[in-house]
Amino acid sequence: MARLVPVSDSADPRLADFVRLRDMNLRKSLEAEHGLFIAEGEKVIRRAVGTGFPVRAFLMSERWVEPLADLLNGLDAPVYVADEATVEAVAGFQVHRGALASLERLPLPPVEDVIAPTSRILILEDLVDHANVGSLFRCAAALGIDAVVLSPRCADPLYRRSIKVSMGAVFAIPYARMANWHDGLGALRTAGFRLLALTPDQAAVPLDKVAMSERVALMLGSEGDGLSSRWLDEADEAVCIPMSAAAMANGVDSLNVVAAGAIACHALLRA
Amino acid sequence: MARLVPVSDSADPRLADFVRLRDMNLRKSLEAEHGLFIAEGEKVIRRAVGTGFPVRAFLMSERWVEPLADLLNGLDAPVYVADEATVEAVAGFQVHRGALASLERLPLPPVEDVIAPTSRILILEDLVDHANVGSLFRCAAALGIDAVVLSPRCADPLYRRSIKVSMGAVFAIPYARMANWHDGLGALRTAGFRLLALTPDQAAVPLDKVAMSERVALMLGSEGDGLSSRWLDEADEAVCIPMSAAAMANGVDSLNVVAAGAIACHALLRA
Ligand SMILES: C[S@@+](CC[C@H](N)C(=O)[O-])C[C@H]1O[C@@H](n2cnc3c(N)ncnc32)[C@H](O)[C@@H]1O
Ligand SMILES: C[S@@+](CC[C@H](N)C(=O)[O-])C[C@H]1O[C@@H](n2cnc3c(N)ncnc32)[C@H](O)[C@@H]1O
Repeated sequence: MARLVPVSDSADPRLADFVRLRDMNLRKSLEAEHGLFIAEGEKVIRRAVGTGFPVRAFLMSERWVEPLADLLNGLDAPVYVADEATVEAVAGFQVHRGALASLERLPLPPVEDVIAPTSRILILEDLVDHANVGSLFRCAAALGIDAVVLSPRCADPLYRRSIKVSMGAVFAIPYARMANWHDGLGALRTAGFRLLALTPDQAAVPLDKVAMSERVALMLGSEGDGLSSRWLDEADEAVCIPMSAAAMANGVDSLNVVAAGAIACHALLRA
Repeated sequence: MARLVPVSDSADPRLADFVRLRDMNLRKSLEAEHGLFIAEGEKVIRRAVGTGFPVRAFLMSERWVEPLADLLNGLDAPVYVADEATVEAVAGFQVHRGALASLERLPLPPVEDVIAPTSRILILEDLVDHANVGSLFRCAAALGIDAVVLSPRCADPLYRRSIKVSMGAVFAIPYARMANWHDGLGALRTAGFRLLALTPDQAAVPLDKVAMSERVALMLGSEGDGLSSRWLDEADEAVCIPMSAAAMANGVDSLNVVAAGAIACHALLRA
């Protein structure tokens, strides 16, 4: 049976996992400290639970208890039930999708393990925008990429916004985070991946002229600065998507990282 | 000479153009009613002014007056100068890029005029997310698309967030908005455009099998529902980007509209 616990005080300490979901700085440190993440909405919650993440607690308004009953009944976690105003007061915004779950993060597998069975991967260096990370997971999944490898400082795929934007792809596609940035590409090179550094630099090899290989890793850089010069140097090839000279003269001198990633994944899949 | 006007009261009615920039509902109606839009940051302001939009007013902290002096001196609009706390109190957030300008919208040209000199265009139906609209303008500009045509209800390219995400591409690429949705595609058909409806439906023609033509229009649908069935029916061809069957079984059943648009623009440009 589900353990339903009525709550009415938004300051109730048992709701601490769910506070101020839009306060990015607070959430980053709170989620890291307690090793948790938040799933929002019935669909995402079912995906997260189905993927094997242990639930710490639920918070929802009355009307979500029934649609989720089958799931709640099979779990031991407390289900805090509050009126919508209280849920809003805790979360800091109106939770349209009604139900929230707080889940335990599981240790990520080492890079070596994640890449072992793969031949097409994406490497993300220091992206800061959670929506971009989520969108790239969605692209990667939809376009048949096998796994994603993140630089140590790349934004978190299990942040609420990443999960949402990914349409759950963060649960569908294996990923790992490098332990350190300096030697981060070593494991990939050892595994025989051809490292393609995507760069807006139009002097690089155009995407459709690139020599493919059995194992290929596409490297994408951060929104502001792009790939670090260290990683650019370590790559086997610097690759560009050709852009309009007129646009570049007008100050549009790169694509958004999701647009670039989508084009590159699509090209890769067809190669 | 620039007309510098010191202000210290965030409720000063002369600052009405700049209030609560993050309140989307308020901004939408306020900007429509007064026919204005907001440019944020030195670079964007220069682009907007350079494009010919008349300035209504500026709001900035002291330290931005000098870097912008050449521009301000050539214009007659009032430059409200306030401390950073006041600017923040008006705008409703900390304006990192320091300077704001409110500009007059100009009447958009009719669809016929915008498409007359073009051969590759993008048509956006009812997108709701300003970041997606901005990103698609950036893609379109970078990838050599000649113009963008918007459905009557498509989100506004001159909304602050669209402009920002577009990297100024909304000023670089001509666009028009259809007067009505029902017959909206008529002008394009009359002009001889081949209308390609992009859809995640995997029964459609795969992108790389599509017959191109001298004039091609790529149609992209809204984030939630995709293209309307009317527009899908009116298109010359329904076109899909092939997706991984495994991902689709996992619930990732479409690409984000920017990812899809980027892939399609790139394919189109090479055709
Ligand atoms: C917004 S861009 C970074 C721009 C940065 N100023 C630079 O020069 O790299 C973010 C990432 O998107 C990818 N990217 C953007 N435009 C690209 C293009 N035309 N060709 C290949 N990759 C591109 C690159 O991986 C880049 O690191
Ligand atoms: C998020 S999708 C809309 C999903 C909607 N459920 C549908 O079935 O169209 C937004 C737009 O992106 C484009 N799109 C997304 N995935 C696509 C794909 N695999 N092939 C072609 N276009 C795609 C289409 O234009 C679509 O209207």
